[in-house]
Amino acid sequence: MGVLEGIRVVDLTNLLPGPFATNIFAELGAEVIKVERPDGGDPSRQMVPGLYEMLNSRKKSLTLDLKDESDKSTLRKLLRESDVLIEGFRPGVMDRLGFGKDEVAKLNSELIYCSISGYGQSGPYRDAPGHDLNYLAVSGILGISGLPNGGPEAAGGIQIADLAASLYATISVLGALLNKARTRSNGVYIDVSLVESALALMSPRIAEYYARNEPAKSDFMGRGAYGAYLTKDGQYISIACVEEKFWETFCETVGMKEFLLDNLFNSWTKRMENAEIINRKIEAIIIRKTLSEWLSIFGEVDLPVSRVNMINDLSKDPHLKHRNAIIEEGDCLRVPFPVKMHRMEAFSQIGHLENTERKGD
Amino acid sequence: MGVLEGIRVVDLTNLLPGPFATNIFAELGAEVIKVERPDGGDPSRQMVPGLYEMLNSRKKSLTLDLKDESDKSTLRKLLRESDVLIEGFRPGVMDRLGFGKDEVAKLNSELIYCSISGYGQSGPYRDAPGHDLNYLAVSGILGISGLPNGGPEAAGGIQIADLAASLYATISVLGALLNKARTRSNGVYIDVSLVESALALMSPRIAEYYARNEPAKSDFMGRGAYGAYLTKDGQYISIACVEEKFWETFCETVGMKEFLLDNLFNSWTKRMENAEIINRKIEAIIIRKTLSEWLSIFGEVDLPVSRVNMINDLSKDPHLKHRNAIIEEGDCLRVPFPVKMHRMEAFSQIGHLENTERKGD
Repeated sequence: MGVLEGIRVVDLTNLLPGPFATNIFAELGAEVIKVERPDGGDPSRQMVPGLYEMLNSRKKSLTLDLKDESDKSTLRKLLRESDVLIEGFRPGVMDRLGFGKDEVAKLNSELIYCSISGYGQSGPYRDAPGHDLNYLAVSGILGISGLPNGGPEAAGGIQIADLAASLYATISVLGALLNKARTRSNGVYIDVSLVESALALMSPRIAEYYARNEPAKSDFMGRGAYGAYLTKDGQYISIACVEEKFWETFCETVGMKEFLLDNLFNSWTKRMENAEIINRKIEAIIIRKTLSEWLSIFGEVDLPVSRVNMINDLSKDPHLKHRNAIIEEGDCLRVPFPVKMHRMEAFSQIGHLENTERKGD
Repeated sequence: MGVLEGIRVVDLTNLLPGPFATNIFAELGAEVIKVERPDGGDPSRQMVPGLYEMLNSRKKSLTLDLKDESDKSTLRKLLRESDVLIEGFRPGVMDRLGFGKDEVAKLNSELIYCSISGYGQSGPYRDAPGHDLNYLAVSGILGISGLPNGGPEAAGGIQIADLAASLYATISVLGALLNKARTRSNGVYIDVSLVESALALMSPRIAEYYARNEPAKSDFMGRGAYGAYLTKDGQYISIACVEEKFWETFCETVGMKEFLLDNLFNSWTKRMENAEIINRKIEAIIIRKTLSEWLSIFGEVDLPVSRVNMINDLSKDPHLKHRNAIIEEGDCLRVPFPVKMHRMEAFSQIGHLENTERKGD
């Protein structure tokens, strides 16, 4: 049983941000009805191999031509009987189809209606097309990405702006549903933009930047003893010694005690500004032993270090296996909803709600 | 009025992931009571300038020594009168303090109790310390970060694993509160880990990787006509031409028509594998004009391009200003909750619920 059982979501989204959000609703037990157009459906079916199946296999599927009057009337009926509508068209399209927020409110005044778009439903960039990278660019995340001494690089690995919008859309819809359940109030219109969702994740860096008087990128993003370091056997280890106690333990463990006597390195801020010197030294040390030798050495002390998993290491990682964080389904790997939830039973045993762990945990 | 008005959250978290989550509750109208220890409180007060104020200024504050019997009893009273507890200690600490989930369920069987930790409440890595980078490493995100032809680099700019956990914790707590409001059921225990939250954001790349038969990093992460390119005046423009129609328009607009005749570049997958050739050519073209010249040229056609904002550009960006996405508060800049919500009024005007836009919108 999922916590969202009994909630019905109509999903008019394609590609990544919308379907990732509605997939969360499906994983949590909601009934999600994905509506696709007749001519080929969601473009992700063709564009990115594997993506469509991953995001949509837990949803019901309905094909509707939203320019056809009889199909429009099917959608109207569905909206009258649903709790949530999530759509991801460019701003203005839903209005032109006759399903703008005012029209839909007349069908179902309690509906939570969520629009996900690149730049939001208003403003000078509203009608511009875009991909994840463009939203990272406008939000400031791209500007601090890449090497501390280099220019902006699309180097973060994953689709941050797309996924930030998925999660903020989910939060907003759940907040509105909760408000409705508690106060029996009308529905809510929710305007999620990818760029503002990315900007929200950028906000801690913005606060830090101004509090530190606008440092140059090399000082702001440089990190000493914080990075991925190559080992003797061609693998990588991640080391993240921010706090003084970890920095001291690390220097003592790898034979860098002389760094503890030098004023250049005696605070985290100084280790950001003098990161290059520290990191060149660490690189020269870490390359001398294999990953498993280092993990064994660091395992003797309390340090924030870990292996760097490549994608094909993930299903073999003992911790991720133990947590059922990545599971085999047929010949595919699947990452389930990442949070474990258990019903609390006061005075008695804990009943499992969903996403339970591997037996013997 | 916020959608979470009437919800009380007890916040036993420090640094970034927990406080970012509880800040969302505060922004949406919940009453959040942040509990800090007497000797200096949340370490973020010292560690990262600006961070504490950004994350905690909308919360009530309470100082409690959780080893003191009288302070313990204050916390017990508070938990009896609250809806949510969010804590971020290393696994086992709350049990040792006498506030483990079973103890707390006896105080308030309806409480939603959420633990946020690096590796979760079980499994072989449970007790290891860690920072954002280590969780990115174990989740596989670090392995695909950095340049397509290079090794893993901490180059994404923001704290992805920390923030992913904040958002998944918020989603899970809201889901549990909604379930309780709809079914009048008992409370729920929620176990959020940073590494599994990051892994969930990695899941689209995992699906794509296996569907494409495990490509090498250079083929998997290389992107032609998708990146930040340096302009004549030392600024950057982001270009993200994934779809054929955008690729064709782009080549025609910048004088790269010969690329449209070459089989090496006639699909997105091929433009990933042959990204270097494309990007060297684009770099040589984009450097010839200024950012504003390029924005004006690209503004005439429908293309996914945008300026790359540096942090100190954000408050001047006309779109972000229009959307009230970043606002001045005293002498600080603040990023409010990024989603606009409006109460739906069927058959009448739309009433503003919160986070309304600039007048004249």
